[in-house]
Amino acid sequence: MINYPNKKTSAAHLGIRDNYMGRGMSLEDDLNKSNTYYLECERAVIHKKPIPIQIVRVDYPTRSSAKIVEAYYKTPSTTDYNGIYRGRAIDFEAKETKSKSSFPLKNIHPHQIQHLERVLKHGGIGFVIIRFTCYDETYLVDASYMIEQYYTQTRKSIPYDEIKQHASLIKQGLTPRLRYLDNVDALYFKEVSCK
Amino acid sequence: MINYPNKKTSAAHLGIRDNYMGRGMSLEDDLNKSNTYYLECERAVIHKKPIPIQIVRVDYPTRSSAKIVEAYYKTPSTTDYNGIYRGRAIDFEAKETKSKSSFPLKNIHPHQIQHLERVLKHGGIGFVIIRFTCYDETYLVDASYMIEQYYTQTRKSIPYDEIKQHASLIKQGLTPRLRYLDNVDALYFKEVSCK
Repeated sequence: MINYPNKKTSAAHLGIRDNYMGRGMSLEDDLNKSNTYYLECERAVIHKKPIPIQIVRVDYPTRSSAKIVEAYYKTPSTTDYNGIYRGRAIDFEAKETKSKSSFPLKNIHPHQIQHLERVLKHGGIGFVIIRFTCYDETYLVDASYMIEQYYTQTRKSIPYDEIKQHASLIKQGLTPRLRYLDNVDALYFKEVSCK
Repeated sequence: MINYPNKKTSAAHLGIRDNYMGRGMSLEDDLNKSNTYYLECERAVIHKKPIPIQIVRVDYPTRSSAKIVEAYYKTPSTTDYNGIYRGRAIDFEAKETKSKSSFPLKNIHPHQIQHLERVLKHGGIGFVIIRFTCYDETYLVDASYMIEQYYTQTRKSIPYDEIKQHASLIKQGLTPRLRYLDNVDALYFKEVSCK
């Protein structure tokens, strides 16, 4: 989960370390801005899903307004992002880690792995975007690799070096912040636009 | 919006009128059950998106738990349902109306119409599911027809008779409650499984 109120973001931390140009924002923020850019230039229609919440109590201070006064976060049953790109269904999860050495697999819920399996089975494009905040590097990891690691890994994490080797580094810039559709082109449409 | 806490559902109303067999539930409930069925029998992977909420204040009664104590409903910027079916991206909105004579276009937000336009443009399958609760009839209305009506209609609603003529009636049953993928087969994959 990115930026849930009970998780600290790493923005402040990065701000101290890096001389960043528009970087150092949370991964969620970067992806939202990139998706808005892709939407506006009509390249893709990809949105972040709202955070799933269990609403328990709602007050009505006035007839027309509703104020939620008791609600709780629910465990997501799907990934956070989905949409359509070049006629294909796209579905992905995004996670950032402060670890320098590996991506902890506990960051991904079992439901999300199961969901990605279904996405692949039904003909969609699925992946996980992983940011190593310490290196300010963001990778696109194909869902089939992630699923395989999830089920077979005896370690509880995927080493950074292995991700570097198996995943595709996403170029970062100002607009869009994360050019991840170039990686999608290269990986799933066999093009070389991101090379 | 279906089943928002500030909207009354028509279930109670229908319960008085109808001798229904598993019908009369809210459209949202019927669709969720149908989607779960389709998911479990591996026919499609379609989910309802969580309701978009603006979270303002969160309390932490204990270190590990978070309780949302102030939040508000946001206007949705996309449709409520999406997923993948037979390799295609599927995206739709669902609405029910108590009107006997027409479907009021104000039930659909301008963002949702714009979103459906984008879905079509990028190669997805888009539609609106409309239930006339008085007749207990549920229709699948193709997005392009709905978009056309939205922009050209001088009336502020689409008459029931016109929907009957242009849309596809969804068969209702116990499992799944709404066999809407049969309509999708017939309309978008040129099959006759729902006829």
